[in-house]
Amino acid sequence: MSAFAGLKALALDVDGVLSDGRLYYGNQGEELKTFSIRDGLGIKLLQSAGIVVGIITGRCSKIVTRRAKELGIAHVIQGREDKLTALNEFCSQLNIDLSEVAYMGDDLPDRKAIMAAGLGATVGNGAADVIAVADWQSESNGGEGAVRELCEAWLKSLDLWSHLVEQLD
Amino acid sequence: MSAFAGLKALALDVDGVLSDGRLYYGNQGEELKTFSIRDGLGIKLLQSAGIVVGIITGRCSKIVTRRAKELGIAHVIQGREDKLTALNEFCSQLNIDLSEVAYMGDDLPDRKAIMAAGLGATVGNGAADVIAVADWQSESNGGEGAVRELCEAWLKSLDLWSHLVEQLD
Amino acid sequence: MSAFAGLKALALDVDGVLSDGRLYYGNQGEELKTFSIRDGLGIKLLQSAGIVVGIITGRCSKIVTRRAKELGIAHVIQGREDKLTALNEFCSQLNIDLSEVAYMGDDLPDRKAIMAAGLGATVGNGAADVIAVADWQSESNGGEGAVRELCEAWLKSLDLWSHLVEQLD
Amino acid sequence: MSAFAGLKALALDVDGVLSDGRLYYGNQGEELKTFSIRDGLGIKLLQSAGIVVGIITGRCSKIVTRRAKELGIAHVIQGREDKLTALNEFCSQLNIDLSEVAYMGDDLPDRKAIMAAGLGATVGNGAADVIAVADWQSESNGGEGAVRELCEAWLKSLDLWSHLVEQLD
Repeated sequence: MSAFAGLKALALDVDGVLSDGRLYYGNQGEELKTFSIRDGLGIKLLQSAGIVVGIITGRCSKIVTRRAKELGIAHVIQGREDKLTALNEFCSQLNIDLSEVAYMGDDLPDRKAIMAAGLGATVGNGAADVIAVADWQSESNGGEGAVRELCEAWLKSLDLWSHLVEQLD
Repeated sequence: MSAFAGLKALALDVDGVLSDGRLYYGNQGEELKTFSIRDGLGIKLLQSAGIVVGIITGRCSKIVTRRAKELGIAHVIQGREDKLTALNEFCSQLNIDLSEVAYMGDDLPDRKAIMAAGLGATVGNGAADVIAVADWQSESNGGEGAVRELCEAWLKSLDLWSHLVEQLD
Repeated sequence: MSAFAGLKALALDVDGVLSDGRLYYGNQGEELKTFSIRDGLGIKLLQSAGIVVGIITGRCSKIVTRRAKELGIAHVIQGREDKLTALNEFCSQLNIDLSEVAYMGDDLPDRKAIMAAGLGATVGNGAADVIAVADWQSESNGGEGAVRELCEAWLKSLDLWSHLVEQLD
Repeated sequence: MSAFAGLKALALDVDGVLSDGRLYYGNQGEELKTFSIRDGLGIKLLQSAGIVVGIITGRCSKIVTRRAKELGIAHVIQGREDKLTALNEFCSQLNIDLSEVAYMGDDLPDRKAIMAAGLGATVGNGAADVIAVADWQSESNGGEGAVRELCEAWLKSLDLWSHLVEQLD
């Protein structure tokens, strides 16, 4: 059975997963984050297949709020180091079980959520202790297409990818 | 016969082609895009050979307007997910046929335009489903010289490159 | 005996160590620096093990003040080309000996401090003349996880790493 | 005889040589350039050996003025596509001959100056037509230490490097 079977939602860490883990600091503090435009399309396609996508991040930033809004991501939990508690909240909001959610993270604070989720995913350059507990790892690094790769693998496992590609044609 | 024979215009996607596909977000939304200075020279040389260069992008940004102006690109179509319709408009404006235009894109929404154009081009790191339908692919990734490579190959196929290099000397 | 035995503090250079050595200049001068979020966690974990972390930099920037504050780094010495003198001050403030401090730097002005410190460390892309005198070198380049790698090696040598990873779980 | 023998000055192109060739555009046009901190030290060391360093760039930017000032570069010629004419002006200002100046550039508009200079240098990722006419090429790419490498090779050829490194110690 596919690793993606039965999953209803995806929760994504931000720094190191949706971004490349670089913090751009200016005189006012954090001023920029970079996101991959291709991750964006992957997320939209996954959403179009009925999978709910949410964001869980330890930091707190209007930048994330902006990007989430653009991607139609309604569930954004920020400023939460305890990712598993936040993941449980996300599941409660959706009325689904932890076994029905995928979580993608890259570093130590993500381990517990990765281990508890139905599918625990990490990025190509994930921390060694995270790779050790992840069910799935992208080839791409965080911020460079890792999320797109996950969405694509997921949709392919559901036999939906070709159809979606053709719909975009 | 050269793949470039008979082509009169080039339409370029922005994110992932003229830029590297990173979106730089700040508190106000998208704040920066990076472009390659060498792509810029390639575009100017192609223009000097009588090829019209245009831009077609799914997003909408003053940044693109700025860069286009600097490069003397008059045809800029923004905010259009349907790239093929936009490409048709570009051809109408120039009174040329789809078979006389080249289009370079990197991701799924570009496929239809790539397939319909006289020459469909993609970048070194183009999406697999895009590479599958492209006639031409650069070695360089988007934002890192892919457009320059296309312009150079085009001008070389017209036996104009050496002449243009000497003119710059 | 481990290279890290007996060390009580770590002093870090900024450009090329905590950042990737790129200076982002705008019309007002230096406007941005990029830091690695994973370096940040490494520093916090090292601090939690009782190691004092400080910053010594030849340049002068509010950006560094911001990042240091976020990481709970109280000892920040800026605008000091003479890194060894600054390192001595750092040791005086902590009432420790040079043999009890580690220093990580990447370029020529860091050599003297690297040679004098109890542990002299450099980054994967350190200058050749710096690598020649360093006791320890990360595989990662500056700004791309070099500091995290140092913190992790240090905590592993103290047999504290697994415990800290589990605490974060 | 060393390629550097008899040279009295160095003129540097900006985009693709001192920077990595990425143009960071915002709503107001070009907003950022990135420079290598290690290039900066290389330039200062070359200056300390009595070599005059200048900048010649086809674009026009306050950012370059800023960085030049910080590096103590008095000779900054901006907005000049004709690099060779500008290089001649630079030589006139210094009362030296073209055979006594080195010039480093990366793209086609730099060719003529590279061919005319006493030493014509380019970067690791220089355009093929530029590499073809250059006397010297760095391993590093532009903006990633190419200028530092040139300064270091120059000072080593004058047997000054070790002395300068020790002076910094």
